[in-house]
Amino acid sequence: MKQSILFTKTRKEIGNDEVSLNASLLIRGGFIDKLTAGVYTYLPLGLRVINKIQNIIREEMDKIGGQEILMPALTPKEVWEKTKRWNNFDALFKLSNIEGKEYALGATHEEIVTPLLKKYIFSYKDLPKYIYQIQTKFRNEARAKSGLLRGREFLMKDLYSFHADAADLDKYYEIVKLAYFNIFKRLKLDKITYLTLSSGGAFSKYSHEFQTLAKNGEDTIYLCEKCKIAYNKEVIDEITQCEGCKLGKDKFKELKAIETGNIFKLGTRFSADFGFKYKDKNDKEQEIIMGCYGIGPSRIMGTIVEVFNDNKGIIWPESIAPFLVHLILISKDNALAKKAEKLYDDLTKIGIQILYDDRDETAGTKLNDSDLIGIPFRLILSEKTAKTDSIEVKKRDSQKVEMIKIKKIGDYLKKAL
Amino acid sequence: MKQSILFTKTRKEIGNDEVSLNASLLIRGGFIDKLTAGVYTYLPLGLRVINKIQNIIREEMDKIGGQEILMPALTPKEVWEKTKRWNNFDALFKLSNIEGKEYALGATHEEIVTPLLKKYIFSYKDLPKYIYQIQTKFRNEARAKSGLLRGREFLMKDLYSFHADAADLDKYYEIVKLAYFNIFKRLKLDKITYLTLSSGGAFSKYSHEFQTLAKNGEDTIYLCEKCKIAYNKEVIDEITQCEGCKLGKDKFKELKAIETGNIFKLGTRFSADFGFKYKDKNDKEQEIIMGCYGIGPSRIMGTIVEVFNDNKGIIWPESIAPFLVHLILISKDNALAKKAEKLYDDLTKIGIQILYDDRDETAGTKLNDSDLIGIPFRLILSEKTAKTDSIEVKKRDSQKVEMIKIKKIGDYLKKAL
Repeated sequence: MKQSILFTKTRKEIGNDEVSLNASLLIRGGFIDKLTAGVYTYLPLGLRVINKIQNIIREEMDKIGGQEILMPALTPKEVWEKTKRWNNFDALFKLSNIEGKEYALGATHEEIVTPLLKKYIFSYKDLPKYIYQIQTKFRNEARAKSGLLRGREFLMKDLYSFHADAADLDKYYEIVKLAYFNIFKRLKLDKITYLTLSSGGAFSKYSHEFQTLAKNGEDTIYLCEKCKIAYNKEVIDEITQCEGCKLGKDKFKELKAIETGNIFKLGTRFSADFGFKYKDKNDKEQEIIMGCYGIGPSRIMGTIVEVFNDNKGIIWPESIAPFLVHLILISKDNALAKKAEKLYDDLTKIGIQILYDDRDETAGTKLNDSDLIGIPFRLILSEKTAKTDSIEVKKRDSQKVEMIKIKKIGDYLKKAL
Repeated sequence: MKQSILFTKTRKEIGNDEVSLNASLLIRGGFIDKLTAGVYTYLPLGLRVINKIQNIIREEMDKIGGQEILMPALTPKEVWEKTKRWNNFDALFKLSNIEGKEYALGATHEEIVTPLLKKYIFSYKDLPKYIYQIQTKFRNEARAKSGLLRGREFLMKDLYSFHADAADLDKYYEIVKLAYFNIFKRLKLDKITYLTLSSGGAFSKYSHEFQTLAKNGEDTIYLCEKCKIAYNKEVIDEITQCEGCKLGKDKFKELKAIETGNIFKLGTRFSADFGFKYKDKNDKEQEIIMGCYGIGPSRIMGTIVEVFNDNKGIIWPESIAPFLVHLILISKDNALAKKAEKLYDDLTKIGIQILYDDRDETAGTKLNDSDLIGIPFRLILSEKTAKTDSIEVKKRDSQKVEMIKIKKIGDYLKKAL
């Protein structure tokens, strides 16, 4: 894409009510715009990032048998009353239609997916089933000052699993854990993301969170560095030693972190309310056992910005960068502009995702914008580099500068990416 | 995909409050589920269809320079007050947050996109710009009985264009018209979709709708068959003859149709309210001229079902069918099941989108389900066809049955699709 066509520009002023680092960098770089507290527009660069995050999650869900659906945001009061959550669920947005019928805006979808699956599952032969969606959710948060980390409107992937018995849930639960580790690996967050025990529910002592270390994180975790398991502050009083290696909890390290995922054994919490049962091999009615597994693409995007940045801007991991290469022309010379244009066309043709800064701006503006936007590879074509038929290549996360012959740059990038 | 794994099943009972043909067929086929009036879940088959429709629209928007963004559903009261539509816009869903701040759920996005672009456009050099999104919208409809044709929650693509003057808008408006005709062509609706003059606004005598003929359509149009232009009932009293060929309006044909798209010259209707101006070449402030262009992927999906069906079920056009081939095994024989499995694998490997009915069901059930689901090519492998190493091929929209050798079926399908 040519930067002269892109409608967004980097911004210096972002409004003084935006206090979070992630939103500040994302707004300044032209990735998102803030409409109102906790509510953001995804601009072209930001939409490319969030779509890549969603696709990584989608691929990993598909690999573990997930079937994708899309449930609505307008959810009727009745289903929330069935589970006694209409008045008890934290932060439901409520509204009425023209006939006075009440809805909640979907903040989670157990109330929708459970009766939905009840329409299709009758027998042990229909089990297990794994259903997921990636969808816009809404929460009436009192505090919405953390940018993409805690929005009033945000993107969420939720996977729900339906099982004939607890043993089958336990088995799948471990499979989802591995899928989540794969997701964090592809997002380059694996080395700072820890499986964390947190408070459970009626059906399990603990649930599991995935906590990503970040100095601005809202959560406090206690990490057993020996076996790499962490404990959320909310459960730390209940334990004396690591559940895995038995290390005393006084040896744990207290750290700030962002909850980037959570997985939960629901048991019959929702299936019971909806009378959702199946017939086993002996034609006997049995209760359906459920699990749920969440991960928020928008929170992931915010987290990545919180952890991958420097004082100049964002440093995107390659897997989710809006473009992989930022080609910058530093010259007013027409012949050189044509050379840059041809290079842009050639690299596009061999499938390299490239943003080409063809704007009539100073070198300083272009370089500052490039650092702020944070594309992994920066290519500079200038009169100086052209003298040796070369292009200057620098990775965003490195200080090293290389000169590569223009005719070899395609091969160089294909190898590097 | 194997049908034994797909969690949905075809349904006979769909609830007697569902009166529309499109929703009935889509619910029975397992494409959508009705959560409450005007609010539907997209199930795996339906999600594949709606995603294909969205991708066709997206590709055509990208071709005419559209830059994709994603605006929020929670939109603050202030922006609607600025345009005096908080109390005047038909069917806004309104709600409040925990602090008493009021929002409307996005029913259209002029109020969001206009101040957004104002943050980035300052000079004639920044114009024109074309911005679009494909997004979930909400309307507090009194009547929501037309399935996907008129939902309370629905998908909408809206494109907004920003111009330096009316002439530039006029030029782009014609480009969008052509893009819309391309979309309808790819959806196989072009032969029954007519550009239709309907009531305009402050800035143009008429706006344009795209009306698709359908006996259950809500709209009445008057078609000049000579030049293929139609007139919406709401403007028919204002004219005496065709604007194009001057044919008298008594010769027009009265028809029922569904409004599947509309394009509208907004002029300064919204830019004025937001004080959105730019500086021209002489550094003089000028008003921004806007256009807007809508098309609803969910309504398109409903329309296609309304017009492409028979008494057995849906007949999907290839461009948006959930799968292109429906392979059906009719046999309890293990050797034949293995042969079908291999065929499924082989066809999948060469990139053919295939649904394989490997279920333990009767031939009658499988064939009825296949007709209801409406995949373009049906392949039957049975003991009878296996005797000649063949497979029976039938297109959903034809009565003709062909026998093709199993080893040639890949080539046959690649040629046919």
